[in-house]
Amino acid sequence: MLILGIDPGSHITGYGVIEKENSYLRYVLHGEVKPPKDSLLSTVLLFIFQQLSAVIKQTAPDAIAVENIFYGKNVRSLIKQAQVRGVVIFAAASLNIPVFEYSPLEVKQAVVGYGRAEKKQVQSMIKAILKLSAPPPADAADALAVAVCHANFHKEQTI
Amino acid sequence: MLILGIDPGSHITGYGVIEKENSYLRYVLHGEVKPPKDSLLSTVLLFIFQQLSAVIKQTAPDAIAVENIFYGKNVRSLIKQAQVRGVVIFAAASLNIPVFEYSPLEVKQAVVGYGRAEKKQVQSMIKAILKLSAPPPADAADALAVAVCHANFHKEQTI
Repeated sequence: MLILGIDPGSHITGYGVIEKENSYLRYVLHGEVKPPKDSLLSTVLLFIFQQLSAVIKQTAPDAIAVENIFYGKNVRSLIKQAQVRGVVIFAAASLNIPVFEYSPLEVKQAVVGYGRAEKKQVQSMIKAILKLSAPPPADAADALAVAVCHANFHKEQTI
Repeated sequence: MLILGIDPGSHITGYGVIEKENSYLRYVLHGEVKPPKDSLLSTVLLFIFQQLSAVIKQTAPDAIAVENIFYGKNVRSLIKQAQVRGVVIFAAASLNIPVFEYSPLEVKQAVVGYGRAEKKQVQSMIKAILKLSAPPPADAADALAVAVCHANFHKEQTI
């Protein structure tokens, strides 16, 4: 089973693909979508959709796992991130891939074993779990972490 | 100039089209997109995108005006609405129509002359301004109000 994890963000949207075979997890790829800075929101959303659609078509995942939005943010950045998240989920749905969601707490718990882990801990645990030569950048590591979380827990589809 | 106003919502997304010729505003159409209840978020977003894309293609507006999200809501419904708003803006951008945004305050100010007007006041003012035989339903009235607001103020494009 191929799983694409996505960490939506208005500046950087991380993504990562892993393969699950029995209980073995194999790293496939990761990357980050960085829309041009100071662009219109419409340009940003179009850019993210196009890049992610290409990744989805190229990798043809069986499931897409998307991180929930962390409520602790200020309202302005929360709305920005949610707008991007809407387009991310739409991109998955428009290509007919089932989407699953996990809270930041569940993701960190699944990967580090501790819900309040730092970004650096997530990056180095992802490096260890997926046997990478170096820790991936923070947002790609988060995306791979959501994919690992889905591989291990596989919740019912809620989104 | 044809203007499509949209009031994004996870339950009901209202839309309305008006035509501006010199300072005269002519009503064209209005409607509401109501995704099937208790659906997955991915289904809801797909549904809204498909319905709105059809409206955009059918009416070919010169501009799309979208209402901002009102910060007073609770975080949960704020995130839901922002996810829909992201897809609404994406739908406009993917069809190459410029998108403009107005706050609920600006919209009410433009239509009722009072930023804290009730929904009913917006509905009856829209009926009067656009010479309708009956007030449109609340979300379609809001959408027509955003279109009227754009017709009268035409801000710089920010989204």
